[in-house]
Amino acid sequence: MKKIAIIGAGNVGIAAAKALLEAPDMELCGFVRRKAKLVPGFENVPAAKSVFELPEKPEGAIITVPSRLAEPIERKLLENGIYTVDAFDIHEKLSAMRKRLDVSAKAGKVSAIIGAGWDPGLDSVIRTLMSASFPKGKISTNFGPGMSMGHSAAVRAVDGVLDAVSVTIPLGSGKHARKIYAVLEENADKKAVEHAILSDGYFEHDECSVEFVKDVAPFFNTEHGVFIENIFENQKMNFKMRIDNPTLTGNVLVSAMRAAFLQKPGAYFMPEVPTCDFYAGNLETLL
Amino acid sequence: MKKIAIIGAGNVGIAAAKALLEAPDMELCGFVRRKAKLVPGFENVPAAKSVFELPEKPEGAIITVPSRLAEPIERKLLENGIYTVDAFDIHEKLSAMRKRLDVSAKAGKVSAIIGAGWDPGLDSVIRTLMSASFPKGKISTNFGPGMSMGHSAAVRAVDGVLDAVSVTIPLGSGKHARKIYAVLEENADKKAVEHAILSDGYFEHDECSVEFVKDVAPFFNTEHGVFIENIFENQKMNFKMRIDNPTLTGNVLVSAMRAAFLQKPGAYFMPEVPTCDFYAGNLETLL
Repeated sequence: MKKIAIIGAGNVGIAAAKALLEAPDMELCGFVRRKAKLVPGFENVPAAKSVFELPEKPEGAIITVPSRLAEPIERKLLENGIYTVDAFDIHEKLSAMRKRLDVSAKAGKVSAIIGAGWDPGLDSVIRTLMSASFPKGKISTNFGPGMSMGHSAAVRAVDGVLDAVSVTIPLGSGKHARKIYAVLEENADKKAVEHAILSDGYFEHDECSVEFVKDVAPFFNTEHGVFIENIFENQKMNFKMRIDNPTLTGNVLVSAMRAAFLQKPGAYFMPEVPTCDFYAGNLETLL
Repeated sequence: MKKIAIIGAGNVGIAAAKALLEAPDMELCGFVRRKAKLVPGFENVPAAKSVFELPEKPEGAIITVPSRLAEPIERKLLENGIYTVDAFDIHEKLSAMRKRLDVSAKAGKVSAIIGAGWDPGLDSVIRTLMSASFPKGKISTNFGPGMSMGHSAAVRAVDGVLDAVSVTIPLGSGKHARKIYAVLEENADKKAVEHAILSDGYFEHDECSVEFVKDVAPFFNTEHGVFIENIFENQKMNFKMRIDNPTLTGNVLVSAMRAAFLQKPGAYFMPEVPTCDFYAGNLETLL
């Protein structure tokens, strides 16, 4: 049984913890949180401010903090010989981040799997398979409707925002609109906050609108989905899912953690890893 | 450009040849056929009775003969240092065959990817991903309706059968019926032929019926499909395709040929290979 720590105890961290409890080959040895408080529902699991303050040093760590905070934490873990996975979702920064994590991973003689949520993650493996099946097909990825955890976290990180939810609305052919519900901090400047949100890299490519509300609870719903299609002449293939967003993200992170232990030192995207490495069972039953 | 030979020039062999013409990294250097005749539409491509009689020795070979004839051909190629791929589809014999091909591949210091059509092949990679996403979900694979190339070839190989088509009909929940249309040879014993077909390993697990006809042409249709579903509580994911069967099989074989060159010596199933190895393009565009 590999000992695994979870960094962050938000929706995804909790979901990853639940997935670890079901995994036959790994066990949860601690949470790392800003305030070192025990996590409700996991009172028998140690919590600390740093991995290095946990009672047992983990062999692997699942990073569930917001994407923009992940890299320095992850590099330190890798350099200290701890395998890592993350669900980093800022697509245009993936390659550069991979290069830096690759250096850290090789220094620590361990490996990292990056972008291991469901997009890029799972969806990028599906797109790779679809491209191999119909190299000249036209692939589109359509998200939602549903709340994006990465985009919601990005809005929450904007100065003047107390809480936020960002909902992804599919427009077809891989295009999306985003509706952002945000609660302003007292005395915050509405115009400045709206401008800061809309000019963030998470939002600048899509059609977005911001609505300031008193409470985001009515808009908070973890059900999400994707429809990925490859069309070549009169032939079609598609992958579709309706899922609970943190649950699926947690499951994919745990499967990626399993796979990380099987790779040579370095940092990997999910399509670079044999798919059977993600799977705990007997491959022959799936053939 | 890697030089590739195609063994067999039936529907799948022709489709693989067309896929090779589109591949940026491989070129077709010959067909191997029982009668060494040039292949219609590919008159400028050499044809021979053996790979070793082609003007150029290929670096890889795509095996498109019926599954039951594949192994001895493939082992000889591997032992002679030629990378191979096949679309072997007799699921219960995959593991044993892989072990034997693994020995041959290592002896020839090359690799083989086996079962690289769309089932096991592509579908087994999808099932592996779905299991990693929802380890406790219930996966079902539903084929068709459509003509099965492997099953049709198996009926054609029965003594007393002149020609045949086997159609797969999905019954739901991963169960199937098979309707077999067969043309009898003159003087063949109907009862004996029917018994031989129904007791074949390709058919013994399903609900099958045989109809003897004068001509199978009205039943010959290469459109096929699959619906693979994983259901976990109220969450669902599915992969669906409607495709031209030989075209997709040819495309997957060519993608697997590309990947074979990137593996260490040995024999592999598709889920054991990083998915990006199947893909000719730039991985970053799919992230």
